[in-house]
Amino acid sequence: MTRIACCQLDPVLGDLDGNDELIRAALTEAVAAGADVVVLPELVTSGYMFTDAAEARTAALSADSPRFAEWAALLGNSIAVLGFCELGNDGGLYNSAAVLQSDGVTSVYRKTHLWDREKLIFTPGEQLPPLLQTRHGVLAVMVCYDLEFAELTRHVAVAGAELFVAPVNWPLFPRPAGEHPGEVITAMSTARLNRVAVAVCDRAGVERGQAWTGGTVIVDPDGWIAAEAGPGVGTAVADIDLARTRDKKLTEHVDLLADRRLDLYG
Amino acid sequence: MTRIACCQLDPVLGDLDGNDELIRAALTEAVAAGADVVVLPELVTSGYMFTDAAEARTAALSADSPRFAEWAALLGNSIAVLGFCELGNDGGLYNSAAVLQSDGVTSVYRKTHLWDREKLIFTPGEQLPPLLQTRHGVLAVMVCYDLEFAELTRHVAVAGAELFVAPVNWPLFPRPAGEHPGEVITAMSTARLNRVAVAVCDRAGVERGQAWTGGTVIVDPDGWIAAEAGPGVGTAVADIDLARTRDKKLTEHVDLLADRRLDLYG
Repeated sequence: MTRIACCQLDPVLGDLDGNDELIRAALTEAVAAGADVVVLPELVTSGYMFTDAAEARTAALSADSPRFAEWAALLGNSIAVLGFCELGNDGGLYNSAAVLQSDGVTSVYRKTHLWDREKLIFTPGEQLPPLLQTRHGVLAVMVCYDLEFAELTRHVAVAGAELFVAPVNWPLFPRPAGEHPGEVITAMSTARLNRVAVAVCDRAGVERGQAWTGGTVIVDPDGWIAAEAGPGVGTAVADIDLARTRDKKLTEHVDLLADRRLDLYG
Repeated sequence: MTRIACCQLDPVLGDLDGNDELIRAALTEAVAAGADVVVLPELVTSGYMFTDAAEARTAALSADSPRFAEWAALLGNSIAVLGFCELGNDGGLYNSAAVLQSDGVTSVYRKTHLWDREKLIFTPGEQLPPLLQTRHGVLAVMVCYDLEFAELTRHVAVAGAELFVAPVNWPLFPRPAGEHPGEVITAMSTARLNRVAVAVCDRAGVERGQAWTGGTVIVDPDGWIAAEAGPGVGTAVADIDLARTRDKKLTEHVDLLADRRLDLYG
């Protein structure tokens, strides 16, 4: 079993020190609760609603910032994934997710599908999520809108990912009463079609007038919700058997990946 | 507006004449109610739970069977899509869907993704769904399990399909209280990710011990449920503005298809 904790926080725009405190507290609490994989929101270090790239640049971190080493030192045997506003070595700004283990940053993924005005601020990543072989399972990290492209999600499922880890900031959209947010429906569908687990960490609060969905959810490999954070600041925790994701056969004659018609669509 | 009617019937295995009656009654009623597009279940002519190919062969129809012309004659200005057990000119058995207009069969699609024991009975189709330019919109027809492959659904969405029409027989699986069937969740996700409408016609009843989901649903281009049939025999009807599907932009900077990173996944 892999214990996954997604901490739905409410970072403050541009307040790197304050957000650092939130991040430390969340990591410490989740690790103490036995989480193997801790997920924090997209751009949790910086907030989201930048007016322009110049403002984002003032809140950016490089992946070798000492802050990451300090967060990593809290992890013990756990792994953390968190979104951050990255200042690249090339001077570019990226909407990135860092993977931390106790010895520091082990991987940085740069969001490849930028949403809306992010296109005016960030440079898109040029690499699909790599497969991360970790002591707590085979992870693929993606950021928010990435999860809405089956081209990407299928690719990493076929490659062997067991757990999709997605820091997100989902802007609140209206929805019919009784329905999950549309993005949650897509996360559920993605899990069941690929038999993978999906851990999404959304944020809470309102920032410069933008309300967030607070849709943090952990989806099991059958596509059902194992845990949600609910509205506001809070944490979703679930124990998921990732070994189940390795067998894509639903019956003797149904195999979710082998049933693809690669002869028809390559 | 396009009025879509999905008639959730309960055909009887091997009873071609009895099922013919059901089909006539459903088409007549739906056309009288002003439906532009009428959808009937997968294998509605024959039932589903064949023991083997020999039994299926006794319930097969060729696409030039006079039954289709008789059904077509009921349609007036409407279009019907229904699943049938097809005996091909090549002697093969196919799990197919026929598109009917008043002048007869205008298209036959052979299911490309066979589910479970269907593989022991049917030959898989060798062509992805063609785009059907009709007086009631641009349709793409798929059958049941096909809808679970984003490779196929994305392909027809990119090609310009406005309405996915899917005859299905969804075997009943357990699900958590309050959740839609997993297949409905996928239909909703498919609609919202591609901004297309999705019309699914499931069947009712129990056949040789197999209970069906009765999950008939019409999903609007935002991914929300416009109509359901509910349990048992019944019809879902919804008026959908298919013109809305032509604009894939959600905001000035978000375009569901243009946002694909074709440079990364071809």
